[in-house]
Amino acid sequence: MKTLINDIKIRKKNLQDAMRKLNMEGCLISTNVNVYYLTGMIFNGYLYISINGEVHYFVKQPVGLSDNKVIYINKPEQIPDLLKEKGVKIPETLLMEEDELAYSEYIRLHTIFKPQKTGNASSLMRTIRAVKTPYEINQLKISGKKHSSVYFDMMSCYRKGMRDLDLQYRIEYIMRKNGSLGLFRAFGSNMDNFMGTVLAGDNAGAPSPYNFALGGAGFDNAHPIGANGTVIKKGMTVMIDMAGNFTPYITDMSRVFSLGEIPEKAHKAHNISILIHNELKSIAKPGISCSELYNVANKIVEKEKLSDFFMGTKQQAKFIGHGIGLQINELPVITARSKEILQQNMVIAIEPKFVIPGIGAVGIENSYLVTENGIKNITVFTEKILSF
Amino acid sequence: MKTLINDIKIRKKNLQDAMRKLNMEGCLISTNVNVYYLTGMIFNGYLYISINGEVHYFVKQPVGLSDNKVIYINKPEQIPDLLKEKGVKIPETLLMEEDELAYSEYIRLHTIFKPQKTGNASSLMRTIRAVKTPYEINQLKISGKKHSSVYFDMMSCYRKGMRDLDLQYRIEYIMRKNGSLGLFRAFGSNMDNFMGTVLAGDNAGAPSPYNFALGGAGFDNAHPIGANGTVIKKGMTVMIDMAGNFTPYITDMSRVFSLGEIPEKAHKAHNISILIHNELKSIAKPGISCSELYNVANKIVEKEKLSDFFMGTKQQAKFIGHGIGLQINELPVITARSKEILQQNMVIAIEPKFVIPGIGAVGIENSYLVTENGIKNITVFTEKILSF
Repeated sequence: MKTLINDIKIRKKNLQDAMRKLNMEGCLISTNVNVYYLTGMIFNGYLYISINGEVHYFVKQPVGLSDNKVIYINKPEQIPDLLKEKGVKIPETLLMEEDELAYSEYIRLHTIFKPQKTGNASSLMRTIRAVKTPYEINQLKISGKKHSSVYFDMMSCYRKGMRDLDLQYRIEYIMRKNGSLGLFRAFGSNMDNFMGTVLAGDNAGAPSPYNFALGGAGFDNAHPIGANGTVIKKGMTVMIDMAGNFTPYITDMSRVFSLGEIPEKAHKAHNISILIHNELKSIAKPGISCSELYNVANKIVEKEKLSDFFMGTKQQAKFIGHGIGLQINELPVITARSKEILQQNMVIAIEPKFVIPGIGAVGIENSYLVTENGIKNITVFTEKILSF
Repeated sequence: MKTLINDIKIRKKNLQDAMRKLNMEGCLISTNVNVYYLTGMIFNGYLYISINGEVHYFVKQPVGLSDNKVIYINKPEQIPDLLKEKGVKIPETLLMEEDELAYSEYIRLHTIFKPQKTGNASSLMRTIRAVKTPYEINQLKISGKKHSSVYFDMMSCYRKGMRDLDLQYRIEYIMRKNGSLGLFRAFGSNMDNFMGTVLAGDNAGAPSPYNFALGGAGFDNAHPIGANGTVIKKGMTVMIDMAGNFTPYITDMSRVFSLGEIPEKAHKAHNISILIHNELKSIAKPGISCSELYNVANKIVEKEKLSDFFMGTKQQAKFIGHGIGLQINELPVITARSKEILQQNMVIAIEPKFVIPGIGAVGIENSYLVTENGIKNITVFTEKILSF
């Protein structure tokens, strides 16, 4: 049964199994994404998981949670005494969210628990979260279906003389009407984005401070990514890369639109992107390394003499794909130096893209579920360049 | 001249003056909001400020910045040698962003610089940022004007039988068309929000995990805040509290709408909110303590026997106002236990609100600039309850 309750049992068991391998007695969680992953809800407080026992919820807000496991606290300093009252041993070895907790919060919690040894709950949770549970896979499939359907609707959003921004605002609106949560959850504190990007013409090649595949200059220095006010003109491509968070789980998908005819070299590069997808689909399955996927793609790009345009021009992204889930940038990362191996039930976005100066971005992005036999597209929609 | 360049000089000087008082030799900054505050741009990298000298930019991305102060790096481990090459002493006392840097990133930077003593750049920057520079005040005034103008447009967004969510999507769309950056920047890693909240009827009283004034249940457990799908009906109030980020600087503003007549007790509580604003306007000026502002408001609420409805019902917020700027929750906080004193050129939102069971939220929120003589509303718009 693909229910959330069953899934959460699996998730907790996976965490406790991993804790056993690492020989860590306890795990303390307080960041929204990991709290949600392990409980199906978001609260302001702490989740304490012991290696063999119950999961304890120490909650500051919201008031009134009906779950009888919930213990209300004012501050984390109360937790050790409350654990003792429940007969739970204070852990000597403790996993903490080292990559997500602010330094000052980490120190506060460390002072409270005084563990003799600590481990990184952030990287462990990211590794566990990379392999999706049945309910999560279903949620991703639902997001993927809605995502594809919204891409169909995008064709009717264009109006003559429109800027990339005007197009994006209409797209955001139809996404919201179709149930998009809006929130763009990403790992890393500096990864601001707003629902995704619409990149018209040469703006697709603008270098960006963010580690997304392509950047865009944005329209304000306070948020330098995405649409920059470019008027959509004939002969220009518009790459639409909006995040599909129609459930808490985000699918990732890009398609290219154009106004009128675009030069043959853009079509050629676009078709190479599709060819890369097909090549990767023919070899990707559990057990293959992510670095090999990257290298296969890169060899095609080199053979086609498109390296100067691959994943940007002035600034080029070093990856062609990434895990997706509650966050847009989950594990694994499909890059040359990756040590990760594809596993069954991972869900990954693959996005080999080219930026052609004077024209814009081409290529497609799909989200794939890794099955026993290979990868399966969950963002099915026409892959050709679409006309406005 | 209210130019950004002049302002940045003032900001750097303020930081260096504060460093001198704290006797800290260096300050290392890498979070987007503080990087933007001190440079007027966002980059992936580090900003090193020495107590008396130049500001140095160590940048990973984007490529191609024209500023000749920029030094490109691959990793922060390169910074000390690069500073030495420039004749800059490696600091023995260093301010680091303790409340914003992830623990693992903090440890990495601490290992690189090996300071003998550290201080908290997060709290220092928040204190400095609380008092706005001339360019920032102008940006906030521009946001406030657009914000008010968009509230006027909201009146035409309602359609018969609409849910709170449908109304919110239309409002988001007109905000974006009017230049909203979309991004909702908040201090604290768990403070997710999406452009603001529309709270219809009893949903205004739903407890929330977030430290915003009012909550709302939201429509998905992965993001439990704001509109929850309530159909807007006669006799119900709708509080619209959308963030005004029409420049990088966010104004905060709430107004109440209703469909048809609402009971007298809702009008009464709404007028008490306006009365509180007027009382605070009559006493607020540089030098007054934020706790006094809170206490004056709270006394009025007690006198009117409205305490059970003030700032929520089941779960009540403990503050009635907060600083605004690049983030929605800047300093000072207007709460009973605050030790902060109002200073000239602070910009604060004041939001005494009531939740009336069976009806919804009432009260108004405005953003005020603290001037020499008192506080000045920068979100001027009718304060009465508006009809759809």
